[in-house]
Amino acid sequence: MADFSFSTDTFDEAAEVVVQMLEERRFVALREMLLPLTPQDLSTLAGLLSEKQMPLFYRLLPKELAAEVFVEMDSEDQEALIKAFSDYELKAIFDELYLDDTVDIIEEMPATVVKRILRQSDAQTRQWVNNILQYPKDSVGSIMTIEYVDLKGHLTVAEAIARIRSVGVDKETIYTCYVTDTNRKLLGYVTAKDILLADATAHIEDIMDSNVLYISTVADKEEAVHMINRYDFLALPVVDGENRLVGIVTVDDAMDVMEDEATEDIQKMAAMLPSEKPYIKSSVWSIWKQRMPWLLMLMISATFTGAIITSFETALQSIPVLTAFIPMLMDTGGNAGSQASVTIIRSLALGDITPRDIPRILWKEMRVSVLCGVVLAAANFLKILLVDNLLMHHYVSLAAAAVISTTLVATVFTAKLVGCSLPILAKRIGFDPAVMASPFITTVVDAISLTIYFLIASAVL
Amino acid sequence: MADFSFSTDTFDEAAEVVVQMLEERRFVALREMLLPLTPQDLSTLAGLLSEKQMPLFYRLLPKELAAEVFVEMDSEDQEALIKAFSDYELKAIFDELYLDDTVDIIEEMPATVVKRILRQSDAQTRQWVNNILQYPKDSVGSIMTIEYVDLKGHLTVAEAIARIRSVGVDKETIYTCYVTDTNRKLLGYVTAKDILLADATAHIEDIMDSNVLYISTVADKEEAVHMINRYDFLALPVVDGENRLVGIVTVDDAMDVMEDEATEDIQKMAAMLPSEKPYIKSSVWSIWKQRMPWLLMLMISATFTGAIITSFETALQSIPVLTAFIPMLMDTGGNAGSQASVTIIRSLALGDITPRDIPRILWKEMRVSVLCGVVLAAANFLKILLVDNLLMHHYVSLAAAAVISTTLVATVFTAKLVGCSLPILAKRIGFDPAVMASPFITTVVDAISLTIYFLIASAVL
Repeated sequence: MADFSFSTDTFDEAAEVVVQMLEERRFVALREMLLPLTPQDLSTLAGLLSEKQMPLFYRLLPKELAAEVFVEMDSEDQEALIKAFSDYELKAIFDELYLDDTVDIIEEMPATVVKRILRQSDAQTRQWVNNILQYPKDSVGSIMTIEYVDLKGHLTVAEAIARIRSVGVDKETIYTCYVTDTNRKLLGYVTAKDILLADATAHIEDIMDSNVLYISTVADKEEAVHMINRYDFLALPVVDGENRLVGIVTVDDAMDVMEDEATEDIQKMAAMLPSEKPYIKSSVWSIWKQRMPWLLMLMISATFTGAIITSFETALQSIPVLTAFIPMLMDTGGNAGSQASVTIIRSLALGDITPRDIPRILWKEMRVSVLCGVVLAAANFLKILLVDNLLMHHYVSLAAAAVISTTLVATVFTAKLVGCSLPILAKRIGFDPAVMASPFITTVVDAISLTIYFLIASAVL
Repeated sequence: MADFSFSTDTFDEAAEVVVQMLEERRFVALREMLLPLTPQDLSTLAGLLSEKQMPLFYRLLPKELAAEVFVEMDSEDQEALIKAFSDYELKAIFDELYLDDTVDIIEEMPATVVKRILRQSDAQTRQWVNNILQYPKDSVGSIMTIEYVDLKGHLTVAEAIARIRSVGVDKETIYTCYVTDTNRKLLGYVTAKDILLADATAHIEDIMDSNVLYISTVADKEEAVHMINRYDFLALPVVDGENRLVGIVTVDDAMDVMEDEATEDIQKMAAMLPSEKPYIKSSVWSIWKQRMPWLLMLMISATFTGAIITSFETALQSIPVLTAFIPMLMDTGGNAGSQASVTIIRSLALGDITPRDIPRILWKEMRVSVLCGVVLAAANFLKILLVDNLLMHHYVSLAAAAVISTTLVATVFTAKLVGCSLPILAKRIGFDPAVMASPFITTVVDAISLTIYFLIASAVL
């Protein structure tokens, strides 16, 4: 069914067919059509239906598939469906879900819906859900799953296979199994590949790898993603404060976190509050709330730049040509600064650099900025001589050209140093480096570069 | 060995220990220390050694581990090692590698080194390598691996397990096996979980899932990443023009591509040429080459903005207070534009929107921009009345305040529309939307907003 995947157009068309078949009550034919589709594609389709049709569509699916589709839906659609469900249907769905998915859904629901969901769960599930809900928002605990396979070291391979066969069907992954002692302390791991390739009589403790990397429930979830990516893991074991195995993070969840975190960083770098909702599904109001605070703050801080211009008003009045170069100086400073800041923010996020590297980074940026600044200054000087003076006959004196070019070097130098320092400083004092990105740095650099400009101009001209 | 992972500091310290032990020729003890480490950590360690010590360090490792470490190294380190290797050592390493890793290494090596590597390979490997090398740079073919497990439908589960045991050790993954007919056409897939949970006498064709999603060798590699992420696959099958199975893309490679592509987009959005090399390892020269072209181009295009100021010089001379608000207007326009453009660029990259959505997007951005613009204008008007006029006694006339605030609304409106349109237009004509990001849009918006500013000012004042 590759023809359904990934094109908004085909989904729109498919949804029209579904709507028509629902209206004509051709349920059997529709069910046949839907069964081969993936849960992901079915949830996208369901999202395109009306609130009245969605439960109808949903009830056509077999229970297990229905649960998988439910997990993939938007929280609005989930909420609408839960409201349409009978208690019996609700229980049937949530019994099929993995616990981490249940928790993810519960976190997005209003209190009344949460109560209804928990009322349908058994005491043990309620307890687990409450445990997971207590982990901080960006912690490993909040994204881990507790459905993993644990084995004891004394088992033979044949016994381990028997155990996997008996418990495996409900586990998120059976491909990495964890070996624990009687106190649930992590002793090692063994992959399904190891088990399949080993002798049936071998003991798990003899084929397991006891060099097992793990992470704590309270660590940052991005750290789990880094480890899974760096070591090519399918799953990473999670331990509690007493080093007992309590869960795993699987590679597919890690990939979701990686994508979300990149999106979040990109949004912050462009002076927006992060949002998890896709743009096309966000209301005008929520987009406005995401963008307004930074726009307002940056507008107000840009008035300082205006104050600098005001205080040099007399200089600008006497040499009016200086005004024409303000945009070029500001833009170049902003671009030079954001190049440096964005590079550093991304390197920090990828773990390529740490705040300890700051002397090396400053030294590197100094050299890069001098190289960039000198080339830009030379290009600018030439351009003034050839274009402004010769071609356009908009005469700029040599002294003014020199002032502008010198300012350019100083601006690029300052911009790069400010751009690379602020994110590292933010990181060191425990702030999010991404917030120190281009727009913020542009404002700082604008103020500095205009001050340099007018100081040099006042001294020379 | 979790204490080694992920901190530059601990690696630096560990490298010092290694250097000392190498100098004291305590090889047996060092080998014992290294064996429990992961290939990734060993390659990071190796990268901190001198070119003379690296081969020494490397020869301490058992052959298989050595090959895994080799794959994880930087291409510079790999090249240095290959030069230090005997032909025998070189053959031993490359015999252990997966073909996709061999190709990745070969692509980064100078021609003489490539020739030496290929001379040590058998004819079949050379042929495969050459095939893979012919796929375009960003295609699925260039990142796929050909080491997968294929099964025939008539096999029983027991026979399939026997086959996996005999061929599995050399395969990148055994967790998804592909069922093909005699012409290598893809019929379905079966997971190791299905096989482990099934009856030993069941036939593969009865337990396989024939709704198999696949991708073409010539598709964009980002599409493979989207599919793996969307459908939570551990591997995605790749077919050629005749629909024959030729390889798979594994989730760990997809995760690498996802991270690299996000980095690349972030670099482009900040007006840099993309670079795959970590910042800290890049030379000043290469960073300069990455940043200079856009800085120069944007500086030159910013002179148009200067030309606009020049043409309104007389207006600015007669109402000097207007100059002080130029930075605020330019910055706010730039920020508003980059918010829109970056949102659209990321949504396009994630497949959330397509060029077909442009009417919906324009309508959404219009409403958001009016909301933002009006609030900013009101805030600005109030600020002029209260701060500039009352507090600072830097008198701005009501008419001038109105001109500035009106310009603000027009600027934000234009900036948002330009910001959301340019990336989509770029996508539609086959360009990379990320290149249309903030700095480029800032330049366009600067020119437009200043023109609006001066036109309104000339008309009113």
